[in-house]
Amino acid sequence: MTLLDKLPQELASHITKIEHYKQILTLLNWDARTGVPKKGASYAAQAKGTLAGELFLLQGDAAFGAKLEEAAAQSDEYDDTINRIIAEHYRAYKRKSVIPFEEHAAFVRAQSEANAAWLEARAANDFAVFAPYLKKVFDSSLRFASYWGFQEHPYDPLVQQFDPDLNTVTLNRVFGELKDALIPLIQRVTAAANQPDTSLFRKPFPLSRQHELTHELLHAIHYDYDAGKFGETIHPFTSAINPLDARLASKFVADDVRVALWSALHEGGHSLYTQNINHELIHTGLGIFTSFGIHESQSIFYEKFVGRHKAFWERHYPALQRIQPETFGDVPLDAFYSSLNAIKPAYNRFEADELTYNLHVIIRYEIEQAIIAGEVRYEDLPELWNKKSEAYLGVVPPTHLDGILQDGHWSAGFGLFPSYTLGFVYAAQWHEAIRRDLPNFDRIVGSGDLRPITGWLTKHIHQYGKSRSANELLQQTVGGGIDTKPLIQYLTSKYSQLYQLS
Amino acid sequence: MTLLDKLPQELASHITKIEHYKQILTLLNWDARTGVPKKGASYAAQAKGTLAGELFLLQGDAAFGAKLEEAAAQSDEYDDTINRIIAEHYRAYKRKSVIPFEEHAAFVRAQSEANAAWLEARAANDFAVFAPYLKKVFDSSLRFASYWGFQEHPYDPLVQQFDPDLNTVTLNRVFGELKDALIPLIQRVTAAANQPDTSLFRKPFPLSRQHELTHELLHAIHYDYDAGKFGETIHPFTSAINPLDARLASKFVADDVRVALWSALHEGGHSLYTQNINHELIHTGLGIFTSFGIHESQSIFYEKFVGRHKAFWERHYPALQRIQPETFGDVPLDAFYSSLNAIKPAYNRFEADELTYNLHVIIRYEIEQAIIAGEVRYEDLPELWNKKSEAYLGVVPPTHLDGILQDGHWSAGFGLFPSYTLGFVYAAQWHEAIRRDLPNFDRIVGSGDLRPITGWLTKHIHQYGKSRSANELLQQTVGGGIDTKPLIQYLTSKYSQLYQLS
Repeated sequence: MTLLDKLPQELASHITKIEHYKQILTLLNWDARTGVPKKGASYAAQAKGTLAGELFLLQGDAAFGAKLEEAAAQSDEYDDTINRIIAEHYRAYKRKSVIPFEEHAAFVRAQSEANAAWLEARAANDFAVFAPYLKKVFDSSLRFASYWGFQEHPYDPLVQQFDPDLNTVTLNRVFGELKDALIPLIQRVTAAANQPDTSLFRKPFPLSRQHELTHELLHAIHYDYDAGKFGETIHPFTSAINPLDARLASKFVADDVRVALWSALHEGGHSLYTQNINHELIHTGLGIFTSFGIHESQSIFYEKFVGRHKAFWERHYPALQRIQPETFGDVPLDAFYSSLNAIKPAYNRFEADELTYNLHVIIRYEIEQAIIAGEVRYEDLPELWNKKSEAYLGVVPPTHLDGILQDGHWSAGFGLFPSYTLGFVYAAQWHEAIRRDLPNFDRIVGSGDLRPITGWLTKHIHQYGKSRSANELLQQTVGGGIDTKPLIQYLTSKYSQLYQLS
Repeated sequence: MTLLDKLPQELASHITKIEHYKQILTLLNWDARTGVPKKGASYAAQAKGTLAGELFLLQGDAAFGAKLEEAAAQSDEYDDTINRIIAEHYRAYKRKSVIPFEEHAAFVRAQSEANAAWLEARAANDFAVFAPYLKKVFDSSLRFASYWGFQEHPYDPLVQQFDPDLNTVTLNRVFGELKDALIPLIQRVTAAANQPDTSLFRKPFPLSRQHELTHELLHAIHYDYDAGKFGETIHPFTSAINPLDARLASKFVADDVRVALWSALHEGGHSLYTQNINHELIHTGLGIFTSFGIHESQSIFYEKFVGRHKAFWERHYPALQRIQPETFGDVPLDAFYSSLNAIKPAYNRFEADELTYNLHVIIRYEIEQAIIAGEVRYEDLPELWNKKSEAYLGVVPPTHLDGILQDGHWSAGFGLFPSYTLGFVYAAQWHEAIRRDLPNFDRIVGSGDLRPITGWLTKHIHQYGKSRSANELLQQTVGGGIDTKPLIQYLTSKYSQLYQLS
């Protein structure tokens, strides 16, 4: 007996097929980034494209849509979870069915061409190589937005691909509040007299020992290896295949152990969320993270509110010292902790500390908005990027490789970036809520047994998967909506103290 | 411009879809054996089952069959390769379209249940636990044989799933000739006065060093890592995803380095075949090994005719001595070589040397034939197994775990085992042919540069993929059909010499 058995058989079969295809596509993405050999990549992409096209057709199938409507009309016959399953597939149906298949296929090709052009542009350090492909993708994004419809802003249906409860009005408010609070804070921190020495992280750290550290950290947060897999890659990521197969891949850099350290905790946090989703929801459409922002909130929770907590390192720093005694053996915990939390505005988002990170996201968001508003020409984007970088972070990238060409996410279209910062905002709200429910939070973080914390997150967030929306999860835990105050307070208080700001 | 562009567009699209699904299913099988975590295996199998069902429907689709027939009727408009593509898909169409989908799905379930029952039977050392499930699978196999039709023997269409050019008459002849020659030879070898000491292989050999040895051997045979991937597993295998993605997985046993050594050369041989198939054939239906027997012939060629050749070890033994000096540093090449080629009848096929291996296959084949002929009851199979083992190998398995329950391949149905021995027969025929064309074969094997040998195999076998059948490959290289003489002669001469038989 599974949840879908409560639905008419044809509907259940169609949903099962969709979910099986999704599982396979997630695996193909995992393989594309960890397994496929260089020469085989293009054929693998072709096969994946075929299956993705089939999934698109299944999700947007008219007969399927009609059956979903019938089922939705009988909502009082079903319990809440079944109604959520119907609603989730109907939402996807509405999204897919209004896009002509050929346009969908052309968009997928344009995304892949844009990604190739981005790599060429990087090789030539020339944004002009990328610009026409970027324009094509963004134009398609806007055409899709018009198919989907919107009340206030074409960006709304685009960001809602990833975060259904977000919209431009909310984003403008959230990002405005963060800028007002963080830009002056960053200026004060970078002007402070005592700047920690971070050179200890740049000393050679053998990769096999970085692997050992990664596994130490994953064990520390109770990642279940029997329901996942660890891989290596050039850009850390997580594959949420299902709650019993939550894989993660880390990056290892010989002369910067922080990359491995933060990857383990960040991707580990994503994976814990996936592993703790109620198993009954597997292959129903609800057995997955509810939104990109919420997914990110869980990785950020473990990376920042656990992994940057001093008590965590009181417990785990000895392991790091044991693994790499040459570098850390004689460094006291306090010095290590200050270095780990050093603030230094960087050109690159990937190298950003937790205080400046959000500004990197905001730069991208504001550029997206300027493009949509027609306020900037594509050829002027590099200049706009550099201006914003100087204004918000105080640094100007020396080349476009460190500036507008630094990451390739825009090849996928509009709307992905806000999730990264929203995740941090959510995580800070939950951090406040969890401290209310678990007054001994600090002691738990240092105890070596994080299960009470993971248990709280499972009870209030993880277990639901997609059967609760981001706003519902917020409402039932903090009794309100998105609020930047906890994040601003956390960052202000932590860095005022660490940098002894008056 | 690809080969399929010469076909009507709808036909080409349908074939492309089939081939993309096959590629994905091969990857899912790879992942099932190297990637999927324990707890996620069952959901992964469900998703794979869905895609396999879709592939079955695509291959057996009536409209597709009609289009293939139309295209076949216009064969003079197409070149040989295109006609082969049409014929290959038509062969598959005929196979799939006569089996009702529900029966196909039930068979897949029965296979999976039989495999689970086999594991339970092993845990209980009780064949009776497995027997009813085995019977169900074998009965389905025979029902499928009747759907497919046959002239002489129901086993013919079953073995032809794997080796289209084989039939029971040929198998009876080949296996009869091998038994006549090998059983007495085994008896003389095992009775010989000087038996080499093989204990050096059972000394602890650290797994990281076994990895190093594996890569040394794969480099020695020019495996292309950019068109493949190396993985670890509990039963060595190859995934021929396509010529640009030929993956292999080895097994590592701390106290028997031979497992890693033979795995590398055997699976490496499979992969070289795949990598050397003409890339134009990718995703047409022909870009893969032409039959299981031919596939096996290439793994056996590298494992035995290269990897058991003394000249190969004259070249590569120093590397083994460098990797594991504690064990091999003081052992002279001659002693190493005799030990590596020691003959010792074992209960288990996986542990079998090259002289006794074929008898393990023949036992299985004869039992399959006895079941089909109704000459044996399922409850008497263990006894029959032990009798044959004693008669052919001179050893009786102490438990059924070492006897009839030792491998689970029968859970898939009838017909797979003959390929293993046929591969050895083919390989010996090519070994004879290659020596005719390359009289300095021995010197090449010892030179460290095997490319002239791989070049010969590519030219005469590999490049064609499925565009030449097994019999055609034989005909164009040795000018005849399957012949056991080269294999019998190779084994007789080699072991008479090594064991100084008079």
